[in-house]
Amino acid sequence: MKITFMGAGSAVFVRKVIGDCMLSPVLADSTFALYDIDPVRLKESKAILEAMKSAIGAGSKIECYLGVENRKDALRGAGFVINAIQVGLYEPCTVIDFEIPKKYGLRQTIADTLGIGGIMRALRTIPVVEDFARDMEEVCPDALFLNYTNPMAMVAGYLQRYSGIRTVGLCHSVQVCSKRLLMNLGLDEYLDGRKELIAGINHMAWLLELRDKNGNDLYPLVRERIPEKMADPDFKDKVRLDYINHFGYYCTESSEHNAEYNPFYIKKNYPELIERYNIPLDEYPRRCVNQIEKWKAEYHDLLNAEGKQYVRSIEYASRIMEAVLTDVPYQIGGNVLNTGHLITNLPEEACVEVPCMINGRGVNPCFVGALPVQCAAMNMTNINVHLLTIEAARTRKKDHIYQAAMLDPHTAAELDIDSIKAMVDDLIEAHGDYLPEYH
Amino acid sequence: MKITFMGAGSAVFVRKVIGDCMLSPVLADSTFALYDIDPVRLKESKAILEAMKSAIGAGSKIECYLGVENRKDALRGAGFVINAIQVGLYEPCTVIDFEIPKKYGLRQTIADTLGIGGIMRALRTIPVVEDFARDMEEVCPDALFLNYTNPMAMVAGYLQRYSGIRTVGLCHSVQVCSKRLLMNLGLDEYLDGRKELIAGINHMAWLLELRDKNGNDLYPLVRERIPEKMADPDFKDKVRLDYINHFGYYCTESSEHNAEYNPFYIKKNYPELIERYNIPLDEYPRRCVNQIEKWKAEYHDLLNAEGKQYVRSIEYASRIMEAVLTDVPYQIGGNVLNTGHLITNLPEEACVEVPCMINGRGVNPCFVGALPVQCAAMNMTNINVHLLTIEAARTRKKDHIYQAAMLDPHTAAELDIDSIKAMVDDLIEAHGDYLPEYH
Amino acid sequence: MKITFMGAGSAVFVRKVIGDCMLSPVLADSTFALYDIDPVRLKESKAILEAMKSAIGAGSKIECYLGVENRKDALRGAGFVINAIQVGLYEPCTVIDFEIPKKYGLRQTIADTLGIGGIMRALRTIPVVEDFARDMEEVCPDALFLNYTNPMAMVAGYLQRYSGIRTVGLCHSVQVCSKRLLMNLGLDEYLDGRKELIAGINHMAWLLELRDKNGNDLYPLVRERIPEKMADPDFKDKVRLDYINHFGYYCTESSEHNAEYNPFYIKKNYPELIERYNIPLDEYPRRCVNQIEKWKAEYHDLLNAEGKQYVRSIEYASRIMEAVLTDVPYQIGGNVLNTGHLITNLPEEACVEVPCMINGRGVNPCFVGALPVQCAAMNMTNINVHLLTIEAARTRKKDHIYQAAMLDPHTAAELDIDSIKAMVDDLIEAHGDYLPEYH
Amino acid sequence: MKITFMGAGSAVFVRKVIGDCMLSPVLADSTFALYDIDPVRLKESKAILEAMKSAIGAGSKIECYLGVENRKDALRGAGFVINAIQVGLYEPCTVIDFEIPKKYGLRQTIADTLGIGGIMRALRTIPVVEDFARDMEEVCPDALFLNYTNPMAMVAGYLQRYSGIRTVGLCHSVQVCSKRLLMNLGLDEYLDGRKELIAGINHMAWLLELRDKNGNDLYPLVRERIPEKMADPDFKDKVRLDYINHFGYYCTESSEHNAEYNPFYIKKNYPELIERYNIPLDEYPRRCVNQIEKWKAEYHDLLNAEGKQYVRSIEYASRIMEAVLTDVPYQIGGNVLNTGHLITNLPEEACVEVPCMINGRGVNPCFVGALPVQCAAMNMTNINVHLLTIEAARTRKKDHIYQAAMLDPHTAAELDIDSIKAMVDDLIEAHGDYLPEYH
Repeated sequence: MKITFMGAGSAVFVRKVIGDCMLSPVLADSTFALYDIDPVRLKESKAILEAMKSAIGAGSKIECYLGVENRKDALRGAGFVINAIQVGLYEPCTVIDFEIPKKYGLRQTIADTLGIGGIMRALRTIPVVEDFARDMEEVCPDALFLNYTNPMAMVAGYLQRYSGIRTVGLCHSVQVCSKRLLMNLGLDEYLDGRKELIAGINHMAWLLELRDKNGNDLYPLVRERIPEKMADPDFKDKVRLDYINHFGYYCTESSEHNAEYNPFYIKKNYPELIERYNIPLDEYPRRCVNQIEKWKAEYHDLLNAEGKQYVRSIEYASRIMEAVLTDVPYQIGGNVLNTGHLITNLPEEACVEVPCMINGRGVNPCFVGALPVQCAAMNMTNINVHLLTIEAARTRKKDHIYQAAMLDPHTAAELDIDSIKAMVDDLIEAHGDYLPEYH
Repeated sequence: MKITFMGAGSAVFVRKVIGDCMLSPVLADSTFALYDIDPVRLKESKAILEAMKSAIGAGSKIECYLGVENRKDALRGAGFVINAIQVGLYEPCTVIDFEIPKKYGLRQTIADTLGIGGIMRALRTIPVVEDFARDMEEVCPDALFLNYTNPMAMVAGYLQRYSGIRTVGLCHSVQVCSKRLLMNLGLDEYLDGRKELIAGINHMAWLLELRDKNGNDLYPLVRERIPEKMADPDFKDKVRLDYINHFGYYCTESSEHNAEYNPFYIKKNYPELIERYNIPLDEYPRRCVNQIEKWKAEYHDLLNAEGKQYVRSIEYASRIMEAVLTDVPYQIGGNVLNTGHLITNLPEEACVEVPCMINGRGVNPCFVGALPVQCAAMNMTNINVHLLTIEAARTRKKDHIYQAAMLDPHTAAELDIDSIKAMVDDLIEAHGDYLPEYH
Repeated sequence: MKITFMGAGSAVFVRKVIGDCMLSPVLADSTFALYDIDPVRLKESKAILEAMKSAIGAGSKIECYLGVENRKDALRGAGFVINAIQVGLYEPCTVIDFEIPKKYGLRQTIADTLGIGGIMRALRTIPVVEDFARDMEEVCPDALFLNYTNPMAMVAGYLQRYSGIRTVGLCHSVQVCSKRLLMNLGLDEYLDGRKELIAGINHMAWLLELRDKNGNDLYPLVRERIPEKMADPDFKDKVRLDYINHFGYYCTESSEHNAEYNPFYIKKNYPELIERYNIPLDEYPRRCVNQIEKWKAEYHDLLNAEGKQYVRSIEYASRIMEAVLTDVPYQIGGNVLNTGHLITNLPEEACVEVPCMINGRGVNPCFVGALPVQCAAMNMTNINVHLLTIEAARTRKKDHIYQAAMLDPHTAAELDIDSIKAMVDDLIEAHGDYLPEYH
Repeated sequence: MKITFMGAGSAVFVRKVIGDCMLSPVLADSTFALYDIDPVRLKESKAILEAMKSAIGAGSKIECYLGVENRKDALRGAGFVINAIQVGLYEPCTVIDFEIPKKYGLRQTIADTLGIGGIMRALRTIPVVEDFARDMEEVCPDALFLNYTNPMAMVAGYLQRYSGIRTVGLCHSVQVCSKRLLMNLGLDEYLDGRKELIAGINHMAWLLELRDKNGNDLYPLVRERIPEKMADPDFKDKVRLDYINHFGYYCTESSEHNAEYNPFYIKKNYPELIERYNIPLDEYPRRCVNQIEKWKAEYHDLLNAEGKQYVRSIEYASRIMEAVLTDVPYQIGGNVLNTGHLITNLPEEACVEVPCMINGRGVNPCFVGALPVQCAAMNMTNINVHLLTIEAARTRKKDHIYQAAMLDPHTAAELDIDSIKAMVDDLIEAHGDYLPEYH
C-alpha cells in the first residue's frame, strides 16, 4: 500500500500520523510518499521518520517528493492521500490574516475556520487542493483523500462538491470532546464506557448526547459543575460552558476557537467579556511563533528515537486506513457532504460532521436526523460563510468574498459594510500571488 | 359563502378587503362576519362597511361578533377566514416593544417581523391564533385561513406546522415590489408587461428575475440608476438598493423594514449610517400615533360614501376567494411551508414566500429551486429567528426566547448575551398577561 | 413571436394547434415555422393552414422547412417549439410494434405509452428529439419545448433529464378526464363548476378529487352508477370504471389504453376478459388504417374553409403560449420531472403529470403531496419501464431494453424471459435504421 | 442486562441466539426472559438452554413467561427484545397459505416474504407485534427491538412507522450472500478479505459490489462461471444466477425464495421453467413437516450438551447487543426505514436493507445512494406489496389486501382480479381468529 502525505513538512503532524502507521501491523510495511515544496522541512521530516522507523523496526519505505514538478509522482498509485498543507504558512499569510483585520478593529483568536481569517485561508488553499485532486484523478483516481487542512468545511466541502476524488475531512476535536469536558469538570470517573452522539459542523459539532456506561444522561451533572468553573478566573474553556448554558449542548472545538464563531464574545462595546471569558486574542500567531522558536530543540529530540516508547495517537488517519484494508468497521466523526439530509435541518450542500462507519469500501456516513433548533441555527450562521466562500472559490467572483465576510456573524457585528469591503480588498492585495485572480 | 374577518376592528384594512369583495361579482352577495374584542372599533367598521355597501348596492350581509364568547359563532360555517388581528395594539404592546429595547441601546424601526419586537409580537399572537384554529377545527374545518397578521413567517408558520387548518400567509409587499423599484428609479416605461420571479421569505423575498415585456433583463438598467439615488439625501429606499449592490437582488419589503433584518445599518459604532441610509428609527410607533390622531377625521370620511368611485385594491384576499370559488387560476406570492423543499436551499420547516397558484382546490405552491447562495444565507439568518420563536411558542420554554433573540442578527450585533437576556426578561414582565407562562 | 412545429405533417393536429393560435388575439400574428421530413404532408399542412388563415383573416406568417438540413433554420429564434413527430409512422414501425409481439403471443391495444410497443417507440423517438434539443441549444436556447409526442413520460422525461431545453409534456387526457366520466355515467348536470385534482403519470394520472360546485364529493354518486355500466355490453370505458372499483380512483387515459398498462385484462389464460371488458385489441393500427383511408376526403374538407365556424380546441398549447406572453396565469396538467418530490411517494427522476401554473416565466409545477398508496404502486409499475427505457436510450445498452420489457407488467405476465428477449431482438432487427446501435 | 426473547418456543433458533450470548463475555451473565404461548415448547427451550449453560458454565439466568398474561412481565426492564414469533405456525396457518392459493392455481415455494402467503402472514403477525410494542412502550420504552419474524419488510416496516419502539429487522441472508455465491461457483479462494456492498430490501438486497482483497471486481469471474452452473441439472441456485445474467447483480435470499418474488419463473404457461430452474414448489411446508418429524431426535441431541464444542453462529443479534453495550462498532445489513432516502431511488416509507453501524447508541443506518435502475425497479415491485399490506394492517380495510395481492407481481401474472379477490376472501375466512376484522 502506498500512502502519500501532502504537506509532509509539517514534521510533528507527519510523525504522528505516519508514526501511527508504523505502529500498525496492517500499515507498517507501506510505502510512505512525502510531498512538500520546502526542501529543508521535507528533509527534516524524512530524518525523523527514518529514526522512528529504525527504533521500531518497521518495514516501511519512505520516499521524498519535492516541489510541484514531482507531485504527480508522489501521488501515483497511492491508496490513501493525507493532506495537511498550510498554504502561505505563518509568514506571510497568517500574519496578514491577523494584522490587516486588526487595523479595521477586527480582533481574532485563531482565524483558521471562520471569520475573515478562515475565508482568506480557504481562498488560498482551495486552488492548491483542487490541483491535487486533478492530479489524483489522473494517477490515483480511487484513492481516499483524508483532509486535515483547515478551514475544513470549506476545503473538504469544495472537493466533495467539485472534484471526483473521495474526500473525508478529519479533525481530532471529536475524539477529545466529551473527555475534555468531563476532565475539565472533575468528572473523570464517568469517562469509562461513556456513550455519546456528536453531530453538526467541524469545530461546532454538538455533543448531543452524553451518557455514562449505564445509559444515564450526564448533562445534569455537567450543568451543576458549570458555575464553579465560570467563576474561576484561570479556567480556559468558558465559551463552551457558556454554550451549554445558553444552547444546552457542549461542542467540539475549544473555547478559543468558538469565541470567534459568533457575535457574542469579542465585542468592541463590551470589552470586559475578553477577560471574563478568558479569550486569548491573537492566540494562533502566538502559537506559531512559539512553535517556530522551539522547533530546533524539538527536532533534535525527535531525531533521537533511541529507547522511546511509541504509542499510537488519537488521530483517525491510521485507524481509517486499517479499517479500509481489513474491513473491520471503525467509527469516526467525519466531515462529509450532507447529501440525503443526514442532518435533516441543515442544507444538503453543507459539509457536516457526523458519525461515519469506515469499512472496506471507505467512508459510510450515518443518518442523524434533526439537530435541536438552536444548534442548527448556530451552525447555519457558519454554513452561510462556508457556502459563500466556496461559491467565491468556484466562480472567482469577488462579490462572493465580500458576501462571505458580511455573513460572518463576528465580522458583521463588529464592522460596517464599507469597512468589510475595504478590509477584503486590502487582504486580497496583501496576499498577492497566494490568491488567484478575483473579478 | 360566509367570510369571517378576525380583527375586524382594523377599520381601514377591513374596508379594503371586504370592500374588494363587495366589488367582486363572485363575492358581493356573501355574508361577512366581523369579529373583534373591541366594541367601539367593531361598530365603526360595521358602519363604514354598511355605508360602502349602500353606495355600491351590494347584496352583502354584514354581521358583528363581539368578544371571545362569540368567536365560535363568528367562525361557524365560514368558507374563508381572514385574520388581521393585532394583539396588544399600539398601547401597551408596541410601545413596550420599542421602549424597553431602547433602554438597552437597541434601536428599531418597525419591529413587527424580526428582531426582539418581532419575537415578542409573535409570542403574544400565536396563542390567540392557535385558539382561532382550534375553534375552526370544530366549526369550519375546511375553511381557508388567510393570515395577514405579522410577524408572518412565525404566525403562519406556526399554524401550518401545528394546526389542522389550511393556512396561507398574505402580504402586499410582493405585488408592489418591482413596481416600486422601477418607479423609484424613473423606469416607469418598463412597468407594462414586465415579468418577474420573487421568492424567499416574507419581507425578504428576492426579486430574482425582472424582465421587460420582451424578456430582456432589467437589472443592468436598474444598477445604472442606483448611484444617483444613493447620492440623493431624500431618497427613502436606500437599504434595498444597497441590497442590489451587495447581494445582487432587490427584495420585497421597504428599506425601513429591511434596515433591522441584518447587522449592517443600525450600528452603535457607525452612527453616520442612520443618516446616510435615511433610516427612520422608531418609524412604526410614529405611524401608529399618526394613524390614531387622524382616525376621527378618516372615519367620517369613510362613512361618507356618497358619490365615491370604489376600485379594488391590490390585496390578494378577494382575488384568492374568487379563484377558489370559480376555479379560474390566480397567481399570488404566498407564505407556505417549504414542504418538499420548494426552495431547495432553505429548510423544510421554514415558512417561505413563493409563487402559488390559487384554484378551486385552494393554494398550490409552486416549485422554485435554489436561491442564489447569498440570498439563501440572508434568509437563513432570519429563518433561525423564526424557527426558534416558533419553538418557544410550542414548548413554552424561555430559553428558546433567549436563543431567538441571540440569533437575531441585529440584536446580537448590538448587545451582549447578558443584556439580551435581561431585556427579554424585562419584556416578558412588561407584557404581563399578553404572554402565556414561560418556564 | 416565432412558433415552430416539429412534425408539421400531422395535418389534423397541426391545424388544431396552430388554428388555435390563429384564433388567439395574442398569437394570431405570429410566424409559424412548419418542419417535417415528408414533402407531401408538409405541403398539405401548409395548404390547410393557409386556407384557415384566409377564412379567419389572421395576420399569421406560415413558413415551411423540409428535411433535416433545414431543421436548424426552422428552429432559429423560435420562442416556442411544438413537437408532434411520429418516428417511423404507421408503416413500417407501428405495424412492426404490433406484428412481432403478436408472434410471441403478446397482444396489445395502443402500444404507444408502455409495453413493448411503447418501449420501441421511445427508443426510436428519443434520438430524434435529442437532435432537436441539440439544435435548439444552439439556435433558440430559451424556447419552451411543448412535447406532444408519445410515449410522453419517456420522451419528455429524457429531455428533462438530459438536455438543457425547458420541456413540458402535454396531453389532452387531463382536460377531458372528469368530463368523460360524468358524461359516461349520465351525470352531466355536475359538469358545471366541478373541481378536481389530477396527479400521477401521463395516461395514468388519478382523478384524486372530484367535487361539485358546492364542494360535495362526487365519487359516491359515481360509484353508484358503475354496476349498470359494467353490465352494458356496449359500454367502452370499463377498465377505468374497474379502476374505481379496485383502486378507488378514475384515471386520465381511456380504457383501451389502460387495458395494457397492467397485468389484469389481457390474459392468455382468461380469454373471456377481452369481451367482458370490451377491450379493442389492435385498436391503434385499426385507427391508423382508418385515418389513412379517410385522409383524401378529409383533406379536401379542410382545404375548403369557406363559411366555417372555427372554435378553439381543448389543446393546451395555444393557452400556454398566451399565458407566457401575457403573464396571465393558466392551469394545466403538465408532465414535468418530479424534482423536489412534488408527488412525495414517486421517485424524483420520474416524469409526473401534475397541476402546473403557466405564467410569464413558463411552467411552474405545483406541489401535490402523497398519492394514495395503491395509486402510487400502480404508477410505479409503469415508472419502472419509463426509467429503464430512458436508461437504455442514454447508455445504448441492450440489457436495459430487455429489463424494461421484463419489468413491464403486461409483458412479464404473458411471456417468459426467453421469449421477451427474443422478441426484443426481433424488434430491434425489424426496426433497422430507425433505432441506433445497441450493444 | 435483561434480554427478552419473544417466541422462545422456536427452540433451535433461541438456542442459537441465546447460545451466542452465553458464549459472549459481554452477555453471558445476562438474564434471559423466554416468552411463548406454548407451554411445551417453552419448557423444551428452557431445558435446552439450561443444558448449554451448564456445559459452558455461563452465569446466565433463564426465566420463563408463559402466555399473554405474563407478557408484560417478560418485557419489563428489558434492554433488548428479540422477536422470532410465528403466528399460526405450520398448522393451521402455513398450510392454509399454501393450500387455498393452490386451489386457484397459484403455486408458491416459501410464501413468507411476498406473494399472497407473505401478505397473509403479515396480516396475522402485525397485530401481535403491535401488542408487543404497546407493552414495551409501557415497561421498557428504551429497549431495542430485534425483529427476526417474517415478512420482514412488512413487520419491521410497520413498527418503524407506527410504534415508538426502536426496531431493526435482522436476517442472516446478508452475511452469507457473497460467501454462498463464491462457494457455489468454486471461487472459494476469493473468500478471504473480500469486500462488498449489499443494499436493497430484505431477501432482495443486491450484491452491488464484490471485490477481492486487492480491490479487483469479482463479477467478471463470477459471470464466466455461470453458464456451467446453469447447465447443471442439480444446481439449486439458478434463479439468482439468472438475476446476474439479466439484472447484473446477485441478491441476498436463496433461489427458492426469489422464484416467487417476480413474474418470471413460476408460470402456468411455461411449465418447463420449474424443472429448468430447479424450483422447489411447496418447499416451505415440506421443510416444516421435516422439522416437526425430526424434532424429538434433535431435542434429545440438544439436551445432551456434554462435551460439545460450541461456536458462535452467524446471527447478528449477540454481536449487536455487544456493540451497544461496549460501544465498539459493528457492521450489519439491517432493515430500517428509508428515512432521508438512504437509498435515493426507493421511497422514504419503504423498509430497506442497508449497511448499518451499531454502536453504543444503537443502530445507525448508512447512506447508500442510488441503486442501479433495474435493481430499484425490481425492489419497487415488491415494495408496492409491502406498503399496501402495511396500509391494510393500519386501516383494517379489505380493499388494501386485495390491492396488495393485485400488485404482487407473481399473483397478478398468474390470476385475474376476480380469482385474486375470491382467493383473498377464502383466506381471510380460513384464517378465522388469526386475523383481525377487515371491512
